[in-house]
Amino acid sequence: MLVQKFGGTSLKSVARIKNVASIIARAAKEDSVVVVVSAMGDTTDYLTKLAHQVSSSPAHRELDVLLATGEQISVALVAMALNEAGTRAVSLTANQLGITTESIHTLARIVDINTERIRQCLAEGLTVVAAGFQGKTRDGDVTTLGRGGSDTTAVALAAALDASQCDIFTDVSGVYTADPNIVPTARLLKEISYDEMLEMARVGARVLHPRAVELARIHRIPVRVRNTFDPDHDGTILKGADEVEIYRPVSGVTVDRDQARLAILKVPDRPGIAGEVFAALAQHRVSVDMIIQAFHEGGSVNDITFTVKRSDLSTAQFALKDIANKIGAEDILADEDVAKISIVGAGLMDQPDVAARMFSTLGNESINIKMISTSAIRISCVISDRDAERAVRALHDLFELSK
Amino acid sequence: MLVQKFGGTSLKSVARIKNVASIIARAAKEDSVVVVVSAMGDTTDYLTKLAHQVSSSPAHRELDVLLATGEQISVALVAMALNEAGTRAVSLTANQLGITTESIHTLARIVDINTERIRQCLAEGLTVVAAGFQGKTRDGDVTTLGRGGSDTTAVALAAALDASQCDIFTDVSGVYTADPNIVPTARLLKEISYDEMLEMARVGARVLHPRAVELARIHRIPVRVRNTFDPDHDGTILKGADEVEIYRPVSGVTVDRDQARLAILKVPDRPGIAGEVFAALAQHRVSVDMIIQAFHEGGSVNDITFTVKRSDLSTAQFALKDIANKIGAEDILADEDVAKISIVGAGLMDQPDVAARMFSTLGNESINIKMISTSAIRISCVISDRDAERAVRALHDLFELSK
Repeated sequence: MLVQKFGGTSLKSVARIKNVASIIARAAKEDSVVVVVSAMGDTTDYLTKLAHQVSSSPAHRELDVLLATGEQISVALVAMALNEAGTRAVSLTANQLGITTESIHTLARIVDINTERIRQCLAEGLTVVAAGFQGKTRDGDVTTLGRGGSDTTAVALAAALDASQCDIFTDVSGVYTADPNIVPTARLLKEISYDEMLEMARVGARVLHPRAVELARIHRIPVRVRNTFDPDHDGTILKGADEVEIYRPVSGVTVDRDQARLAILKVPDRPGIAGEVFAALAQHRVSVDMIIQAFHEGGSVNDITFTVKRSDLSTAQFALKDIANKIGAEDILADEDVAKISIVGAGLMDQPDVAARMFSTLGNESINIKMISTSAIRISCVISDRDAERAVRALHDLFELSK
Repeated sequence: MLVQKFGGTSLKSVARIKNVASIIARAAKEDSVVVVVSAMGDTTDYLTKLAHQVSSSPAHRELDVLLATGEQISVALVAMALNEAGTRAVSLTANQLGITTESIHTLARIVDINTERIRQCLAEGLTVVAAGFQGKTRDGDVTTLGRGGSDTTAVALAAALDASQCDIFTDVSGVYTADPNIVPTARLLKEISYDEMLEMARVGARVLHPRAVELARIHRIPVRVRNTFDPDHDGTILKGADEVEIYRPVSGVTVDRDQARLAILKVPDRPGIAGEVFAALAQHRVSVDMIIQAFHEGGSVNDITFTVKRSDLSTAQFALKDIANKIGAEDILADEDVAKISIVGAGLMDQPDVAARMFSTLGNESINIKMISTSAIRISCVISDRDAERAVRALHDLFELSK
C-alpha cells in the first residue's frame, strides 16, 4: 500500500490535474493507493484574502469551514479525472476519512485516525483520494492543520495505514544541497536522514514541512520526495540515520529570508523579565526563533535580541509595546534586513572545525554575522539579507557540495 | 423563529455579503434566525464547467462533493460577516445540519431532518447559517438537491423547525403579474396562493423553485418573497387559497423561453409505442413537458409532438435516434424557435371564456399557436420565440393586470 501526496502547484490547472491522474493511475495498477491532495494553486491564499475582506478578524471556526473547501474541490476533481482515466476512485473529506483533531481551529493537531472507511474502499478495489490539511473535531466541526498540513495528512495516513511508502510530489526533483536557483551547481541528494531533513525544513528548505518530517521520523515512514513534472526521476528518500549509506559532514546549505530581528534595549537585569517578554509574544501567536541575551557593557541592564518571521514583525512590535514600558526597557529596535543561512549535516557533531571554517569563510566574504545558533547537526547565522545568496554560494563551495 | 434564504445574486461580492449580514442582524435582534444561503454568484456554474473540463461525464458522486463547496464558502463568509457585525453566528454544513437525503447524487430528495444541532445552537443564542442545496446520505456521503435546491432547503428547514415564516430573498421585490423587463407596467402581487405560485413557477416565473413551493404548500409554511436590495419592501406572501383575500381570474402572465419542440413523424399507430418513446427519453433524464399525439390525415400513423428544455434538446435527439428506427417512424423534426406563454389564476376554472379570449387575442396579433395545454388554473400556449414578448404584453393588457 502506497500513499501519494500532490501539492497545490501540481494541481494548479485542469491539465495538471490530468497529469496527476495519469501518475496515480500508473501506480494504482500495481498497488493499493491512497492519494492526498492540497487545494489547487493559490486557492487557500485567495480564500484567506476573501475572509479578511469580509471581516477584520475572521472567526477561526469559520475560517476553517472556508479553507477546507479548497481541498474538497481538489479531491472531487482528481477523483473525476481518475475515473475518466479508467481508475475507479472515490473522494473522501476529513469527516469521511475519520481524521479527528483537537478543537484548535486553524492550527489543529491530529489526535486519531479511524481508517475503517479507507480500508473498506481499498478492499473494494477503489483508489482513495483524501483531502489533505483538514480534520474534524469530536463534535463534527471542520478544522485545518495549519501550513504544511497536507504533508502532515499524507504521513499520518501512511502511518495509520502502515503504508510501505509515502511519496510527496512537488515541483522539484527532490532535496538539493542548496536552492538551485541560488547555486546552479547544487546537487540532488539521493537520500537524507529524517534528522537532517527536519533541520533543513526548519531553516528554509521548503520541499517538506517540518511537522510532516517529524511524524515520518517517529513512525519511521519511508518518505520519497518526487517531481510531479518528472515522475520517472527517483527523487530523494528520507530514512533513519542508521539506514543512510552515505555519510557527509555537511549535507546542505539553506537560507530562510522570511526573517526579522528585534532587539529590546537596556532591559533591567531582573529574574523573570525574559519570561514576561516571550509570554507577551506567545499570547499574540508569534513564534520566536533565535534568542540572544547579552549583558550591556558595565551595567545592570541586558539587551534581548531575537528573530521572528518577517510577516510576524508588526504583530510582535505591537505585542512588545506595553511590556517594554512595563519592564522599563529603553527602546525596541526592528531590523527587516536579515536572513538566516544554515548548514546541516549529520556529521557536523564529529567535526569541531566546521563552525570555525563557516565563520571564516563568511568573514573573508566581508559578510557580517549578526547572530549565531547551533543544534547537534546544524549551524545557523543571521546575516544581512542582501548578502544571503553570496553566503550560500560561498558555503556551498567551501564544503564542496557540488561533488 | 424565522428562516431567511439568500440566493447567489444576493451574495455575489464581499459588499453584498455585508449587506446580507446587515439584513440578518436586524432580524436577529427580534427573532431566532436560521439563514439558508446559496453559492456566491456564478460559483455553481463555474464548478460545473471545471468538472466537465476534467471529465467528459463526471462521476455524479464527485460532482456533488465539488458543488457542495459553493455553499460551504458562503456559510463561512456570511457567519464571519455576522460575527463582524456583532451578531453571534455559526455556520453549519448539510452534514452538521442533519439533512439526510436519498443516495441519488445531483438530484437527491430530502428524507429526514434531525434538527437537534440547530435547536441547540439557537438555544445558545446563536444565529445559524445553513448551507442550502446540499444533504448527506445515511453513509455520510455528500449529495445535492438539484436546481432550486436552496429554496427547498429553506422551506424544509422552516417546516422541520416549525418556523413562523420563511423569507426568500432575491433580486426582485416579489412576484409580479408579468416580467417587468417585458411589461413595464407589471404590478407586484401582495399575495398569491400556493397553487398559483406553483403553476407560475413551473411555467417560467423564476422567483421561486416549484419544489420549494410544493413543500411550502404541503406544510402550509407562510413564504414571503423579498428583495435583498430593498429589504423594507413587504414583497409577496404565499398563502393557502382559502387565506388569499383578493380573488382574480388571472393573476399573472409568464413566459418560458427555455423550450424546444420535437416531433416524431408518422409513427405507426400501435399500442405501447408512445410508452417506448418516453421511456427512452426518461432513461436519458430528459423531462418532457407538453405532449400532443395527432392522427395523421387518413392513415394508420400518428405524429407525436412534445416540448423539452432547450438545453435537453441534443440529448433528446440522441435518445430518440434508435427508437425512431425501431418503431418505424418516418422522421424527427426539431424546432428551437419556441416559447411557452401561460396565464395563471385561481379564478380561471370558473371563467370558461378566458381561454377563448386568450386565443383570440393572440390571433389578432397574428401570433400562431403551435400547441396548447391547460390545468385547472393555467392555460399555456407554445408559440414562436420571436413573438414571445409581444404575446406577454398583449395578454397582460387583455386581463388588465396593471390595475
